[in-house]
This record gives sequence, structure tokens and C-alpha cells, in this order.
Amino acid sequence: MNLHTPHLLFLGDVQNPLDAKTARGIVDWRAEHCVGQLRLPGCEVDLGLPDLTPAAAYALGARSLVVGVAPLGGQLAPEWLASMQDALRAGLSIVSGLHQRLIDIPALVSEAEAHDLALVDVRVPPRAITIATGAPRTGKRLLTVGTDCCVGKKYTALAVARALSERGINATFRATGQTGIMISGQGIPMDAVISDFLSGAAEELTPDAEHDHWDIIEGQGSLFHPAYAAVTLGLLHGSQPDALILCHDASRTTIDEYDAFPIPELKACIRRYEEAARLTNAAAQVVGISLMTHAASDAEALAICEAFGQSTGLLCFDPLRDTMTPLISSLVS
Amino acid sequence: MNLHTPHLLFLGDVQNPLDAKTARGIVDWRAEHCVGQLRLPGCEVDLGLPDLTPAAAYALGARSLVVGVAPLGGQLAPEWLASMQDALRAGLSIVSGLHQRLIDIPALVSEAEAHDLALVDVRVPPRAITIATGAPRTGKRLLTVGTDCCVGKKYTALAVARALSERGINATFRATGQTGIMISGQGIPMDAVISDFLSGAAEELTPDAEHDHWDIIEGQGSLFHPAYAAVTLGLLHGSQPDALILCHDASRTTIDEYDAFPIPELKACIRRYEEAARLTNAAAQVVGISLMTHAASDAEALAICEAFGQSTGLLCFDPLRDTMTPLISSLVS
Repeated sequence: MNLHTPHLLFLGDVQNPLDAKTARGIVDWRAEHCVGQLRLPGCEVDLGLPDLTPAAAYALGARSLVVGVAPLGGQLAPEWLASMQDALRAGLSIVSGLHQRLIDIPALVSEAEAHDLALVDVRVPPRAITIATGAPRTGKRLLTVGTDCCVGKKYTALAVARALSERGINATFRATGQTGIMISGQGIPMDAVISDFLSGAAEELTPDAEHDHWDIIEGQGSLFHPAYAAVTLGLLHGSQPDALILCHDASRTTIDEYDAFPIPELKACIRRYEEAARLTNAAAQVVGISLMTHAASDAEALAICEAFGQSTGLLCFDPLRDTMTPLISSLVS
Repeated sequence: MNLHTPHLLFLGDVQNPLDAKTARGIVDWRAEHCVGQLRLPGCEVDLGLPDLTPAAAYALGARSLVVGVAPLGGQLAPEWLASMQDALRAGLSIVSGLHQRLIDIPALVSEAEAHDLALVDVRVPPRAITIATGAPRTGKRLLTVGTDCCVGKKYTALAVARALSERGINATFRATGQTGIMISGQGIPMDAVISDFLSGAAEELTPDAEHDHWDIIEGQGSLFHPAYAAVTLGLLHGSQPDALILCHDASRTTIDEYDAFPIPELKACIRRYEEAARLTNAAAQVVGISLMTHAASDAEALAICEAFGQSTGLLCFDPLRDTMTPLISSLVS
């Protein structure tokens, strides 16, 4: 997939940092692809990149504007349109992972054609996906799952894949969402797949492999989310993981933006995920807990990890703070 | 939705009666819409209707050919194309609920245009569905769920809706699949919805209603199916059922066409469905077991219902054999 790197990252007028997770993910994992940020008045998120106009970004080498925000529902805000048109006039292609496709917006299509630039929609699943077979496949698979959305499933998968590679173990990060696809340049956007084909898409994403190869699969949503649990379950069944890592934001007690929905205790979450996963892989088990502890001090973070470690009996770590060595050792032992 | 009744039912060369469930459903619930059947050599299913050519069916009043078969994956077999073209030449519109859309098949589009006839794809979800909110809604809801696909979820829902109406209770059958939509003329094909919007679609299908109104919702798939459990869960969360009826084929021990997947014991199924449903409706409970006992004698069927009644402590019935009165009384008491 041609992502027209490097990028100017568009943040619109986003208020909630969780809605800017696409831009943040690209900055954190592909800093070399990021030239600057473009923010509208009222934007309360700062990626720490230079604020640039499309023309200035182009002059500095940028070749695309990436829509770095992911509002609930995945629609492009009408007030963003002028910025996209400006970018095209300045010579930047546009890359988006929203449900609403750039190629369905006539004002952008005509502008892109006029300047011979690309509109790249990454949230487009493959055309021909087959129904899941449920048949076992060769190779090993690890899936990150979550107590909620935005709890580090993608970061944890990327960190595990990197740590395995550094250890000399053959591993592939498998992207399942728009940001992961923008980071790795490939993958299947599971939440855009027609529901009948969800598990089939997950099987296709993680095919037969060498017996010692690990697919490290980015999880989606949460079994405890009132809107997205179906995506989570389809991915879980189709990917047939041997190992699960449960991701959790230690500061959160309810589902983000769904305050009426409490996050269950971690032991209950573990039981529910293992029970669901064992439909297609009887050996599936949660092997570790990945904790987001960004709001805590180092000492507090250590205490949080120790507390969850005692209550669950599992390896607990924050992939942004801690070494992955114990986890990797447990996987390949 | 204009279904161009009455119908000639197309069965292709189908071998497995379960693959002909669309045609069977229309015959059983809308006999007045059925003029005849069109079968290809090798077809082993008989609906008990006259075998008619498209021209003969047209002469008897038919105005559409309905694709009455639903093969795994929902693709039109290439060898069926000639029959569709014959039907259009004879003056019949075509109605289909396959994933593959009639309007995407150029040979049919040109033939339909030449004869000014319609190509009706019923498995097309609404264009603008919103993400589920999880917020409670007024009115009462019942969802049929299954131990597998093809275990009577649609028939049970239709039977419950009819029995409620006969009792003078305000009830609406809510179709969620192609056959239900062909029977009732409306609904949302859940398995064709983009996965992120599944629960939102189910919320939209079953909106706020009078406090004593019952939505009787056709279930889809099974939580224990390796390919379709995601559809099941999204529908379950979005429809927020107060009552569930678990449907089961008493003669089946493994998932149909997935022999490696055993059907769990009914008590385990009940626990899993209630646990999942209570995410969005804490009061959700399984209120009865609907059993397919078609292969059994009357005496055997009674014994099967009694045995499951004892093991589960719930009302057990075959909606094709037994009165619905005890169930309806328990719902409205």
C-alpha cells in the first residue's frame, strides 16, 4: 500500500487525545514519516511536531496529509473539508482511515484529479473474503485484547513484535485497524469488514506459517464494549490465538464515553476472553497483562503492576516503561 | 420493500435441505405468495409446489423469481445464471438475498433493463447506521438465539409474534436475515452490516416503543459457531433483549458443516447467552427452549421436550408441534 510518506498529520479541532490516536500512533512508531502537524482553531491536542501549512510541509518534503483523528463513527467533519482541499492544492495526497471514504466525496475527487494526486482510503477490506473454516493453522499466534477501546492493544502488539524480532525470533505484526495499517503499510481493517466475514478475514490475515513463527495480532474493541464487542469476538475466533495479552488502562473504571458500562474485574475479563477464545483454540490462554500507567509516577506504576500481578497471578507490565524480556522468555520457552 | 409477489421459487441444484431454508421459509409463512418451484437437474429438495418453467409461472400470475437457496458464503453459482436470464425473458423480476448482489452482475442488469424488470437485493443494509449507544429503550424485546445456525430461530420468532398478536398483545416481528425480510417485507440483514455498526443496526431495528409492546427479534448464527458468532453477539448487544428463547435441534451434536465443533450442553449455552446479554440489559434471561423435533415421532418429541425441561428447568416446546400458550402467558404475566 503506497502511503505517500512523509506525512503532514491533520488533527482538525480534536479535543479528546483518545480521538487523535491515529496521529499519535504514527508519531510514536514511524517518527521518520512525520514532518509536521496541521491543527484547526480549538484543537487541544499537540503531537510535539511543528505546526505547518500544507505548502510549508510540502516544501519540507511532505507528500501526504494524513487524517490523524478517529471520531466515533468514523465520519469526516464538514469543517475539515477546506483543509483537505488546501492540502491537495499544495501538492499533498490525502491518506485516511475513516469509515467515510475520501473517494466518495466529490469535492475531494475533483481536486485530487485536477492535481494528479492520490486519495488513499486504508479502511477498505479486501474484496473477496471467504467464510471462516475454523480449521487449525500452523505457526503460533498472539492476540492483544482489551478491557476497553484505547487501552494499548496496538502498542502492546507492536512492542511484542519488536521485542521478538530483537531476540531473533521470526515474528510479524498483523494490523487490524486504520492506525496499525498506516504504521505497518499492510493489514485488514476488521471493523470495516461485513460482519458475516469477520472471522474469515482474521483467518486470512494470519495464514499458515512456520512452526516457530509468531503472528502478533493487533486486537480491536473489547468484549465488554456495548458497540464493538462483535468485532472483538470475530477477530478472536478467526485469529485462533495460542496466547492472549489483556490490555487495561489502570486509571479507567468505566468504558470510555459509555459511563454506564463498568469495566469488569480483570480476573473476570481473563475468564471471559479465555472461554471465548477456546471455541477455536482449546489451548488459548492469557499470558500477561499490559497496563497503561501513563498518569502514574514510576513508583506508582510499579505498585500498580505488582498489585495486578498479585491479583491475577500473571506477568504485568507497561510496554512503554518496562522491559519485555520476561514476557518474551515465557512465550518462547 | 416491493417483493413483486407472487413468486416462482428457484432452488438450483441444491442438495442439503438446510441450504434451501429461504424457499422453505417463504412456503411455510407466505404460502399465498408461492406459485411454483424451479429446480435444476440434481436438485434433491422438493417444496411440494408444482415444477414450473418461468413462462408457465408467469402465466399463472407469478411476477418474480426468488432465489430460494442460501449457500455458504452467499455467492450465486455461475450455472444458475441461465435460469435467471430465462426468468427475466419470461417477464419475472428477480429477488435475491445472497451476499453477491444481482445489480453487480452485468448480464442480469442488461437483461432486466431490456425487459423493464426489477433486480431486488434484500440483503442490503441501510446506508446510514450509527454506532450503538447502549442506552436503554422503552418497550419489551425478545430475541431468539441458537445453539447453531438453522435451528428454528426465525420460525420461533414468527410463531411467538403470531401467538402474541392472537392474544391481542401488540407485537412486531423484526427480521434480521434475508428469509425473514422476504417473509415480512422489512428488516435489516444483520450479516451484511459492516461490523463496527452491527449493534447500532440492532438498536435501530428495535426502537423505543410503547411499554407493553413486544419486539420479537429473529436471531442470527450462534455464539458457538466458529464463523458467525460475531453477528450473534452484535445483534444480542444491540437488541437489549428482556427475554431470550434458546433454539436447538435435538438431533444435532455438532455445528452444521463444522463437525469439529461440538454443541455445548444446553445449560452451558444458557449461561453464556445470559452472561453476554447482560452487558446491555441486566434483566435479560432465557425464558424457554425451542426444540426442533421434526425427525421424531409425537411420543418421542414429547419425551425430548420433557427431558430438556427437566435438565434446564425451563419451558421446552417445538413451535411446529406445540401450543405457544404457556410461553405467551409467562411473557405477559
